[in-house]
Amino acid sequence: MHTVIDKLTWRYATKKFDATKTVSDEKLERIIEAIRLTPTSSGLQPFELLVISNPAIRAKIQAVAWNQAQITEASHLLVFAAWDDITKDRVDMMFDLTNEVRGFKNEGWENYRRQLLDIVAARGTEGNYQAAARQAYIGLGVALTAAAFEEVDATPMEGFDPEAVDEILDLKSKNLRSVIILPIGYRASEGDWLVNLKKVRRSRSNFVTEIK
Amino acid sequence: MHTVIDKLTWRYATKKFDATKTVSDEKLERIIEAIRLTPTSSGLQPFELLVISNPAIRAKIQAVAWNQAQITEASHLLVFAAWDDITKDRVDMMFDLTNEVRGFKNEGWENYRRQLLDIVAARGTEGNYQAAARQAYIGLGVALTAAAFEEVDATPMEGFDPEAVDEILDLKSKNLRSVIILPIGYRASEGDWLVNLKKVRRSRSNFVTEIK
Repeated sequence: MHTVIDKLTWRYATKKFDATKTVSDEKLERIIEAIRLTPTSSGLQPFELLVISNPAIRAKIQAVAWNQAQITEASHLLVFAAWDDITKDRVDMMFDLTNEVRGFKNEGWENYRRQLLDIVAARGTEGNYQAAARQAYIGLGVALTAAAFEEVDATPMEGFDPEAVDEILDLKSKNLRSVIILPIGYRASEGDWLVNLKKVRRSRSNFVTEIK
Repeated sequence: MHTVIDKLTWRYATKKFDATKTVSDEKLERIIEAIRLTPTSSGLQPFELLVISNPAIRAKIQAVAWNQAQITEASHLLVFAAWDDITKDRVDMMFDLTNEVRGFKNEGWENYRRQLLDIVAARGTEGNYQAAARQAYIGLGVALTAAAFEEVDATPMEGFDPEAVDEILDLKSKNLRSVIILPIGYRASEGDWLVNLKKVRRSRSNFVTEIK
């Protein structure tokens, strides 16, 4: 049980969490760090992560998310929130950080910054948000894998009212928009209708085309 | 070097591949299998994977992708192609497959099928394509992690003309649209400007908010 395939086979969209079990700080930090290390387009990291243990806040989110019990019964709720726009300030923040971390300014990199600034200016707010939201899903793929390596269960959810969640978490003031929520914790020993059902995926031949 | 964090720290967006090195079938199959196992919204798997080793096809793609040399110099090119729409037929295909694999029909699941069919009918073609494309990015996150566990380098690319790639790969006839391309292979021992530069990520405090 040490390969990515084993871990992805083990995991499933947990329907019933054990509300008495908490993910340790050590495991939580490793999952967070994996998400932070997620590669993104042009290195922009155009999303942020909210890690919510607060029960009252989670109850409010549950109420605008089809009342899905995992939101409050899991150990923590992760919220992936994408930039609502890719502004000049945000691009500059990441390019300046890159220069600072690497300790030098490079003409090729500065040309690329200008090129990217032209692209995001032309694409407009909604197009930039959509591009940012896609990057958050790379983070989700990494998060699900990282959680499985920690033997932590995780249930990705798109079924919630994003504007209501933005309101609850005051994301608008941070120029963020909620994209995915992910309860993490431990499966309950009873009461999960999905846990013993077979995982369903299309066959390799219906999913993969090789061009040799 | 066995944790997800180690693997994500090791990987980088390889700028110069060693064109003489080929990813073994065994490693390639494990990366493909990880992508196939990627969890997706409602279990739809609304994307497919093309695995291209053919040099002439890759040269054509390179020509419509800012001439990025990794496309032809890497061992293989993976193309993530999302469904151009989430049609009734496609939803039914996955729900029927689920019933077949699990060996029974379940009223709750059938209710959910009807609910989902209403959602995708209301959302329309472009909205459904955008939703499908996001799911492909979960696959990308898993692919990057799985490749790193195989010590295979990978360079995600959005910088290509999707309509031209769709044309080259005849994706329109399969009702697919190219979303991300991912050359995989082995970094060259020389000539990669990025390999020795520090990885840049926002600090934990600029990326994570905890609500306790």
